[in-house]
Amino acid sequence: MKTLYVELGERSYPIHIGPGLLGRADLLQPAIHGRQVMIVTNETIAPLYLAAAQAGLSGYDLQTVILPDGEQYKNLDTLNRIYDALLEHRFNRKCTLVALGGGVIGDLAGFAAASYQRGVDFIQIPTTLLAQVDSSVGGKTGVNHPLGKNMIGAFHQPNCVLADTDTLATLDDRQLAAGLAEIIKYGLIRDADFFAWLEKNMDLLTARDTDALIFAIARSCLNKAEVVAADERESGQRALLNLGHTFGHAIETGMGYGTWLHGEAVGTGMLLAAQLSARQGWLDAGEVERIEQLLTRAGLPTRIPGEMSTRQFLDLMAVDKKVMDSGLRLVLLKGIGAAVVSGDFDPDLLRATLDAAHAG
Amino acid sequence: MKTLYVELGERSYPIHIGPGLLGRADLLQPAIHGRQVMIVTNETIAPLYLAAAQAGLSGYDLQTVILPDGEQYKNLDTLNRIYDALLEHRFNRKCTLVALGGGVIGDLAGFAAASYQRGVDFIQIPTTLLAQVDSSVGGKTGVNHPLGKNMIGAFHQPNCVLADTDTLATLDDRQLAAGLAEIIKYGLIRDADFFAWLEKNMDLLTARDTDALIFAIARSCLNKAEVVAADERESGQRALLNLGHTFGHAIETGMGYGTWLHGEAVGTGMLLAAQLSARQGWLDAGEVERIEQLLTRAGLPTRIPGEMSTRQFLDLMAVDKKVMDSGLRLVLLKGIGAAVVSGDFDPDLLRATLDAAHAG
Repeated sequence: MKTLYVELGERSYPIHIGPGLLGRADLLQPAIHGRQVMIVTNETIAPLYLAAAQAGLSGYDLQTVILPDGEQYKNLDTLNRIYDALLEHRFNRKCTLVALGGGVIGDLAGFAAASYQRGVDFIQIPTTLLAQVDSSVGGKTGVNHPLGKNMIGAFHQPNCVLADTDTLATLDDRQLAAGLAEIIKYGLIRDADFFAWLEKNMDLLTARDTDALIFAIARSCLNKAEVVAADERESGQRALLNLGHTFGHAIETGMGYGTWLHGEAVGTGMLLAAQLSARQGWLDAGEVERIEQLLTRAGLPTRIPGEMSTRQFLDLMAVDKKVMDSGLRLVLLKGIGAAVVSGDFDPDLLRATLDAAHAG
Repeated sequence: MKTLYVELGERSYPIHIGPGLLGRADLLQPAIHGRQVMIVTNETIAPLYLAAAQAGLSGYDLQTVILPDGEQYKNLDTLNRIYDALLEHRFNRKCTLVALGGGVIGDLAGFAAASYQRGVDFIQIPTTLLAQVDSSVGGKTGVNHPLGKNMIGAFHQPNCVLADTDTLATLDDRQLAAGLAEIIKYGLIRDADFFAWLEKNMDLLTARDTDALIFAIARSCLNKAEVVAADERESGQRALLNLGHTFGHAIETGMGYGTWLHGEAVGTGMLLAAQLSARQGWLDAGEVERIEQLLTRAGLPTRIPGEMSTRQFLDLMAVDKKVMDSGLRLVLLKGIGAAVVSGDFDPDLLRATLDAAHAG
């Protein structure tokens, strides 16, 4: 087991990474301050891992809420089911919410914890690779709105994260690839050595080798933690973590939430960012080729869905959160390991990039 | 005009108090950082004050959302109408929400600001006396749930508060009295001199004398600001601000939200706290008498509604947020100007207090 600490002053917390962590009472209990604990999970995860998680929480007033599985349920109605459960069981402000599941469960349970009685304690047990490397660090929580993704939410830090690599055994290949997309992202934005390590070890990762996974998860969390610690509220360099996301959100919204996985959309989005950067003259063709190769080896799509026109794509990008008063700003690359936020790109080159990237 | 500053480090902000402040561009504009401004108000306030507020915001991309008036609309559905409006107008994270109205509007718009895109800027223009002395300071925002009041929310500080005493001219007498209840509360919990000032000047306040109102609003905000600055997240002495609230919430919930005004319920709740304190031997009969007199002169009810049994009352108190693992704790009085949080009271005396306090 590896343990990292996300340093945020009085809200610092540990991330434990390794096999067999689910239900480790010695890791969970120091993060719980009251008697009431609510596990929030979904219909897919509950039969697989709920019993093990409950075993680590015996002795508490333990309740469970089991939500339907899927990005389409990441909304205010599902959030309200968590509030209902908390209030029906008369949970007080010293209660703890435990998110057992992927990113959707973490975002829902995290926002419920941020807003129930104006904020209660929160533990994350992410069960997907994506959630282990993304949602574990940064404190972002929230739900979608019909007019935009993650439009309603809060920053709320967990007290502790357990990333149990055993839970990755039941992930399907698409979900694994989606997590690998975020892992590749950390290499691309700020860690060229890690990118080179990924080029060497991608086959071990897709074969779910435990040691390789622990290394990649820890290195990803460490990269994210460094960025977040420097910029908790996302004004400056934290925006670099959105590499691929403005493009990716357009795909997710255009295709309907849940059709593409978030990580798949971000993977293609990162390649689009690389291709636009190359057209700007900031990246050379060999670097774009290395990025596309690594994404392909990870099992990720690299083309815009045929159903989406360039015009629709551009329109969807404009509603993304990263649109400031000053116009559309994108995370682009000036090299592998060197991302920048920039509004200083040629809109014609953006259009040309999208035109060229269509599938089929 | 008086200006106070609520000192909260980088989130410090001014409260301007006086006549003719509505629409003062020189006060509003320093608190706005983007181009997009959304005024959130209700159907009662809009015809009275919306035009004046808009006049101070010319030059911005200004939108307005007008909600129905009443505590019964302080819920997730109404909150969602604000999100809808923000997204339909493509408001970005640099936008500012302006709450123009009483406490319900402030709580709704404040929580929308806290949660829209994980937090945007927020200005309060409270138009009731209660909101001017209560919601202006402390950063509490949120909505009700069918199973409890203010159960969903966040701490979110405004950038600026304009308390325009001219808006109090259109308040009905019940609303004015509700605000006076909170003003009396500051005297009771920590400011015996202010309580004595209120005994001398209550007739000027009920006659809506501008100078008396400015003094009372400023002194109340100052008291609250001192408490909040010392304890932003409500762990210690901030709990004293809940004097009368556990009793009051029971009345509000038992009678149905909106039947009693919040301030009316808190007024009666403070008297119940004083009566229980007297039964404990902590307060003498003369002090209870002074409190009841002042509440009566302010135009406030001092009896539990006849419809509510003592058993129902006790049951509703138990679901209140102030119930910790350790059992029910109440804010009680050890003198005028000397409140304490205590779980150390005799439940039989609580029952006797409630039995004796019924109307009719």
